[in-house]
Formats: sequence, C-alpha cells, structure tokens
Amino acid sequence: MKFYDCRSAPSPRRVRIYLAEKGIELPTVEVDLGAGEHLRDEFRAINPDCTVPALELDDGTMLTESFAICQYLESVYPDPPLMGRDDRERALVTQWNAKVEAQGLNAIAEAFRNRSRGFAGRALTGPEGFEQIAELVPRGRRRAELFFTRLDEELAGREFVAGDVFTVADITALVTVDFAGWIKLPLPEGADNLRRWHEAVSARPGTKV
Amino acid sequence: MKFYDCRSAPSPRRVRIYLAEKGIELPTVEVDLGAGEHLRDEFRAINPDCTVPALELDDGTMLTESFAICQYLESVYPDPPLMGRDDRERALVTQWNAKVEAQGLNAIAEAFRNRSRGFAGRALTGPEGFEQIAELVPRGRRRAELFFTRLDEELAGREFVAGDVFTVADITALVTVDFAGWIKLPLPEGADNLRRWHEAVSARPGTKV
Repeated sequence: MKFYDCRSAPSPRRVRIYLAEKGIELPTVEVDLGAGEHLRDEFRAINPDCTVPALELDDGTMLTESFAICQYLESVYPDPPLMGRDDRERALVTQWNAKVEAQGLNAIAEAFRNRSRGFAGRALTGPEGFEQIAELVPRGRRRAELFFTRLDEELAGREFVAGDVFTVADITALVTVDFAGWIKLPLPEGADNLRRWHEAVSARPGTKV
Repeated sequence: MKFYDCRSAPSPRRVRIYLAEKGIELPTVEVDLGAGEHLRDEFRAINPDCTVPALELDDGTMLTESFAICQYLESVYPDPPLMGRDDRERALVTQWNAKVEAQGLNAIAEAFRNRSRGFAGRALTGPEGFEQIAELVPRGRRRAELFFTRLDEELAGREFVAGDVFTVADITALVTVDFAGWIKLPLPEGADNLRRWHEAVSARPGTKV
C-alpha cells in the first residue's frame, strides 16, 4: 500500500493519527498542497477530486476518503479496534464521525477557505475554482461554535465521542478542534467536558502527528 | 427497532429504499417535516439534530445518520449484501456514498434550501435558524452539474456507482438524481452512462418508494 499525505493539512492528519495509534508504517508520498501539486495532471490521475489523503492498495485501487481509508486499514490491522468492537459500536462510530465532519470540520473549512487570501478562487476543494462568499465566514464560525456546545453536552455522558473507548470519531473530532485554531475559534466558555476530552486525547502519543 | 421517516423527504428515502431492497418491514413513525414536527421538543429528545431518518434500536440507542443506519441494518440482515461483499468493496461503498453525499446531495440541498421561500431562515438542517445566502443557489447547481459529469465518467467503466453490483452508494446516488428534479436540474447532455444507470436503478421494484 502507499499513502498520499500532506503534513500541513487537517484531513490527512486523520489518517496519520490512525496509523500512529495502530503502529502502522506505510510508504508515504508527500503532496505539496501549498505548491498546488494536487491540481496537477499527475495527481489528478491518482485522485480526480484533487484531495489528500489517498491510499493506494496493492491491486491499484485508490481510496480517497479518510473514513473509507481507515475502514479498509481496520480490516487489515484489526487491533487495537478503532472503529467499534461490535455492530452497535461500529454504527455509532460511523454516525459520530459523520456528525463531526458535517457539523464541525466542514464548518471550520467553510470559515477558513472563504476568508483566507491564499484560497481566493479556491473556496471549495476539488478541481473547479469557486469564488469566496463572505457570508460563509461568520456562518461557518457560528456552526462550529454550536457543534462544540453540542459535543460538550454529549461528552457529559461518556468518555469519548462515540462511546467509552477511543475511536476514529475521536480522531476526527481532535483534528476538528485543532483546526478551529486556524480561524482563532476557542472552545466555548464552560465547555468543560470538551476541554477534559481534548486534553486527554491530545496527551496520547499517537495524536502528536 | 423503530424507524422515523418522512415520506416526502430525500434523506429518509435512502433508508426506505434500503429496507425495500432487503424486504425488511419495521414499525414506522411518520414525522411531518412540513408542519415542523422535527423542531418540537418531543422530536428533539429523539434526535437533537432535528433530522430524519432515525432508527431506534431495541436497547434504546438512536441512530440518526442514513449511512450508519444502513450499516447497522446490514449487520442484522446481511442478505442480499448492499454494502460490499469483501473489505475492498466495503471501503469503496463507504467512499462512493461519501462522495455522492458531499458533492451531489449536499450541493442540491444547498441550491434548494437557499432559494425556496419555505426555507427562509432555515437554510441549514438542525435546530438553529440560518438565513438564506443567494450566492449558494448558483453554486449548488454548478457543483451538482460537475458531480453528475464526474459520475457519468465513472459509470463508463462499471455498471454501478461503487462497482459491479447494486449497493447503498447507488441508493444515495438515485435519491440525489431524483432530488435534482426539485431544483429543475437535468442530467448533463451527453451523460449517457449516468442515464443508463438511472434507468436501470429506477426500474428496480425496491426503489419505487
């Protein structure tokens, strides 16, 4: 297998943490998003969506979505389980990962990409250029704030995002909280459960990548 | 188990088709989105995100994301397989389902909810009101057009969205193409592979729900 990474970007960090938590080392290709390597023909042939992470399987199959990549790796390296230990847990990991992506990660990306000068004309990922929309900056921030409050309430009742063990849903949520720093969005005041969780997951050796 | 549905909405149709394709019948509660039932306290206690579909498991666990619901049902009713027959196929179904959601379904929802008078102040799902943003209407249409062209190219090389058998990725894509009718967005001219696929999946008895 071969892993396409970019050390400075949030989404591939999800897979990097997954690999570190499992103790997996894979041949890795660094894709320089800052230099626009993902938009060149060579990388489009690897992923027409022009995004990292990507994982090339030994038969040539390309996986280009973070959660699908982790799901495949989980089948090859089942221990320790990071995507649920039974059917109910697996469904809850899928669910919480999806909620974190849609309500948290995408909201912060919306606020970041519609404001940053470096993303003028590139407000969305993908091969097509889209202009920035100023109204999406405060909307993205507000959505992320609401999500952090929601997640704080959930974490009052359990130790980790999808249940009582660390899973891929925690990885996505950790990357999301750290990504919020890019738009200088602090955790909401009084979100003590979220702070407790963030400290605990940040202290894991596997998340320092 | 208990299924929370809304007969007129695209997202719960994904689960309805899944159930019909499997021949599963579940006790079903109709949630009247048009009347705002999903925003009332009674439904918020079921799903704080105020969305359908939702699936209540026998132990009381609530699943509230379409793909997670299908994943759980797949573990209870494995035949016929609709989420991949081996690890590689399962990852590809997850991947294509995610791409269809992010690039297709969400794009059409963006165009629809930011324009329709009935969604003024409700441009996003969830308990919080968000104002419509006019610029998202043409952006959503353009994103959906690009996605249909992309999917047409993919379908030149295989019969179904995620491979050579019908899966949940086809269900999400079918619901997406039909949802495009709500914004009067036709399939792109010359998208013959996409048309061939759409006719084939629309002819399945299980998709007529």
